Amino acid sequence: MLGNGRPDDPPVRVVIDTMGGDFGPRETVKGAIQALSNDNIELILVGDQGPVQAELERHDTTGRSVTLVPSVDKIGDDEHPIQALRHKPKASIVVATKLVKSGDADVVVSMGSTGASMASSVFLLGLMEGLERPCLGGPFLGVAPGTVMVDAGSNMDCRPALMLSFAALGSVFAHRFLGIENPRIGLLSVGAEEAKGNKQVQESYALLQQSHLNFIGNVEGMDFFTGRADVIVCDGFVGNILMKFAEGLGGALSGFVKDRLAGALSSQDLAKISDDLWQTTNMPRTMGGPLFGVNGAVVLGHGSCEASGVAGAIHTAVRYVQVGLVDSMKEELSQINKGHQPAAKLQAED
Amino acid sequence: MLGNGRPDDPPVRVVIDTMGGDFGPRETVKGAIQALSNDNIELILVGDQGPVQAELERHDTTGRSVTLVPSVDKIGDDEHPIQALRHKPKASIVVATKLVKSGDADVVVSMGSTGASMASSVFLLGLMEGLERPCLGGPFLGVAPGTVMVDAGSNMDCRPALMLSFAALGSVFAHRFLGIENPRIGLLSVGAEEAKGNKQVQESYALLQQSHLNFIGNVEGMDFFTGRADVIVCDGFVGNILMKFAEGLGGALSGFVKDRLAGALSSQDLAKISDDLWQTTNMPRTMGGPLFGVNGAVVLGHGSCEASGVAGAIHTAVRYVQVGLVDSMKEELSQINKGHQPAAKLQAED
Repeated sequence: MLGNGRPDDPPVRVVIDTMGGDFGPRETVKGAIQALSNDNIELILVGDQGPVQAELERHDTTGRSVTLVPSVDKIGDDEHPIQALRHKPKASIVVATKLVKSGDADVVVSMGSTGASMASSVFLLGLMEGLERPCLGGPFLGVAPGTVMVDAGSNMDCRPALMLSFAALGSVFAHRFLGIENPRIGLLSVGAEEAKGNKQVQESYALLQQSHLNFIGNVEGMDFFTGRADVIVCDGFVGNILMKFAEGLGGALSGFVKDRLAGALSSQDLAKISDDLWQTTNMPRTMGGPLFGVNGAVVLGHGSCEASGVAGAIHTAVRYVQVGLVDSMKEELSQINKGHQPAAKLQAED
Repeated sequence: MLGNGRPDDPPVRVVIDTMGGDFGPRETVKGAIQALSNDNIELILVGDQGPVQAELERHDTTGRSVTLVPSVDKIGDDEHPIQALRHKPKASIVVATKLVKSGDADVVVSMGSTGASMASSVFLLGLMEGLERPCLGGPFLGVAPGTVMVDAGSNMDCRPALMLSFAALGSVFAHRFLGIENPRIGLLSVGAEEAKGNKQVQESYALLQQSHLNFIGNVEGMDFFTGRADVIVCDGFVGNILMKFAEGLGGALSGFVKDRLAGALSSQDLAKISDDLWQTTNMPRTMGGPLFGVNGAVVLGHGSCEASGVAGAIHTAVRYVQVGLVDSMKEELSQINKGHQPAAKLQAED
């Protein structure tokens, strides 16, 4: 695996939007402090000064690098992200993202509104050249830790060119973050044959085939678990449904196993296996979801994260920076965009 | 639960395409014979005479109603369904479906090519009035046995009017087959709010809201397990991916649990819990999938079914007939179509 961080690497400067999520700032601050023990980081906590200071005082941070940068208010899940950015210019996610923009932090982590995080990333950090929307990606199942899904976010009705960008970004992630050489890219469909799938998939198939990516063709729902592909590309509509479906199924099966094994196992072992099942189907709650395609490192955590999930998202953020995802992704997108112009592509291949 | 079949009900005449599936005719015949013990049926086996006769002789059918109707050849998964229907007019699925058409059988069951079964159903039995495509539906998870998904099949790029038809057909199935009064219909999306989702979902939302169905709005991936909706409506692209994803995840978790509990449980108990997990995520392999929207009863089984899966699909077929799904679905579709003409709808409500 690449870039686990060498001992002489400088600490990664992580800024946390402590107000985000269902349990901020209590669990976000607690998780951030936990992360200080796991990773070589400098912490910048952004949030309403009084409450965050109070949370901070619950922990011993002697000798640790922790800075508090005050913000005013937060943007909720129920707000229109772009309007909210305008009306709340000092909101925690805005202040936090600006610290990455100004170079005062290496990466921003938020458990808050996905829409607000994506909007502030796009407006403040800017989209990578040649991309029309950012996306969320990564592995999302503990039982399939080497399978990267892009887009796991909320891009609806994606055009084929955007699906191609997802593939490029996912490929870089699989290579740099997971250490997979020449990642195999599969397009999520309802059958392996080229003609299978909806119009979007059929058109994306052609584009992917023409690209320099290691495209292996269509894959199906079961292929998240067969190891056929390292990166599975889908529309954010399907990706979002799959992620939430997996969470739900994991929870249901966790209960199912508990019922079936009651009596056969000690209550401690029972709780353990049930919890393990839940965890393995809820990876984004334990490691966050990296945002791809903006000119800066951003990791979104699950809104219902408690401290350990916050620490997990911070760990992902640290690796995001250490493996240099932003630069590699920019480079890959520029290759992909060259590929769109056949003459330029030929030249590049000479 | 409605219509479990009363003792004085006449036997249901079930015709089986014995050539279909990965293990036909051996497992299809074996499963059909098993079904004779479970359900009050008369069996009609369709297939290549020699091989089916040979399979039949492996079983004791003394005193049982079993008829063999010969056919020639079968249609494979790799063939274009409509062309194959033309070139193989005596193929098993064609002969079997014709027996329902002529009134000599009440329901046809096939483990063969889904495309061929759907095409022969549409061409021979005809689509219900007001419908542009048939669909597959039903519960597909043992941990969510009361949640009906439509379309679980292969209708891609569905227009909103077709999504409305799926909802109507699913509603009838939930009511008649599962005994749910006034089934709650949810539209599968990425958020509960009306504005959430892709264009298809947004447009379908409006149509569903205007209908007389008990539409509760958008539901999300986890809602297959929350009991919020009795029927979840989606495009066949998403439905197919979800079904295969659930199968794959079930298999992966089954292995996961086996690994984690090795040592803590006897190998027998271990095999049992692992098998239970697999079963509960593979319901279509054990009960088949009913086809909705054609003028006759049709149940498709999973291609990789062994005998017990064939018997399960036959059980589904028997209930399909006993609860009178075809007539109820026709009636519901005609209500829905009236609803499309506002004046007629008002009249109906007076």
